[in-house]
Amino acid sequence: MSNRELPLTEVTSPACEVTPLAREPLTPRAATDLAAVFKALSDPVRLRLLSVVASHAGQEACVCDVSAGFDVSQPTISHHLKVLREAGLLSSERRGSWVYYRVEPGALRQLSALLDITLPEAAGR
Amino acid sequence: MSNRELPLTEVTSPACEVTPLAREPLTPRAATDLAAVFKALSDPVRLRLLSVVASHAGQEACVCDVSAGFDVSQPTISHHLKVLREAGLLSSERRGSWVYYRVEPGALRQLSALLDITLPEAAGR
Repeated sequence: MSNRELPLTEVTSPACEVTPLAREPLTPRAATDLAAVFKALSDPVRLRLLSVVASHAGQEACVCDVSAGFDVSQPTISHHLKVLREAGLLSSERRGSWVYYRVEPGALRQLSALLDITLPEAAGR
Repeated sequence: MSNRELPLTEVTSPACEVTPLAREPLTPRAATDLAAVFKALSDPVRLRLLSVVASHAGQEACVCDVSAGFDVSQPTISHHLKVLREAGLLSSERRGSWVYYRVEPGALRQLSALLDITLPEAAGR
C-alpha cells in the first residue's frame, strides 16, 4: 500500500485521526475538514462519478469510460472529477493521452468508519 | 426496533436500497437522494451537532445539552438540527418543555455501508 491511501489524514493533518461520531464529539477543526469532504459528495453527478470509478475493475477508470451515461458536458465531468480529487476521494494519473481516475480507498474507509454508528456499549466501551 | 430506524429508505423510497459504491454505479435517483443527505453533513456545525448527539448517552440529547460549546445562536443551532432531522439523520421528540434529539442509526449505517470500499474481490465477487 502506498502512503497515498490515506488522503483524509493529509486533509485533516497527520495528527487528526478520524474517530467515529458515536465515540466522541468532533473537534471544530476535524468537523471543518470532514464537512469539506462531505460537500464533495453532496452533488448527484459527483456521487455517480465516484460510484462509476469505485465499481469499475480495479476501482480505476479512464476518463473516457466514466463519461458514458452522463447528460452533462465533458468539461463539467472534468470539473466534478477535479472536485473529488481535491477532496482526496480520487487520485488521477495520465497515461498516454488519457487520464485515469482511481478511488482512494483509505479516504472512503475513514468516512465509512466515521459514520459507523455501532453503539459504544456494543463496541465494549 | 421501530420502523423509524431506516429513514434513508424513506428518503430514497422503499424500493431503493443503498448499495455500496464499490458494487455498482448509483442510479441518478439514488444519487440525488444520497447527495441531499451528504449536503446535510457538509456543514461543520451540523457535523459537530450530529457527533454531540451520537456520542451522548443513549445516542440522544436534549437540545439544552447540545448547544454548549457552540459559538452560534440558539436559533442557528435549531436550524441546523432541523436540517439534520429533515435529512433523516436525527429524530426529535418533545418531552415537557425540552426537545430531545436522537440519532437515526439506520441512516448512518446505510451511509457507512455505502462508503465501505472493501474490494469486491475481497468480498467474494
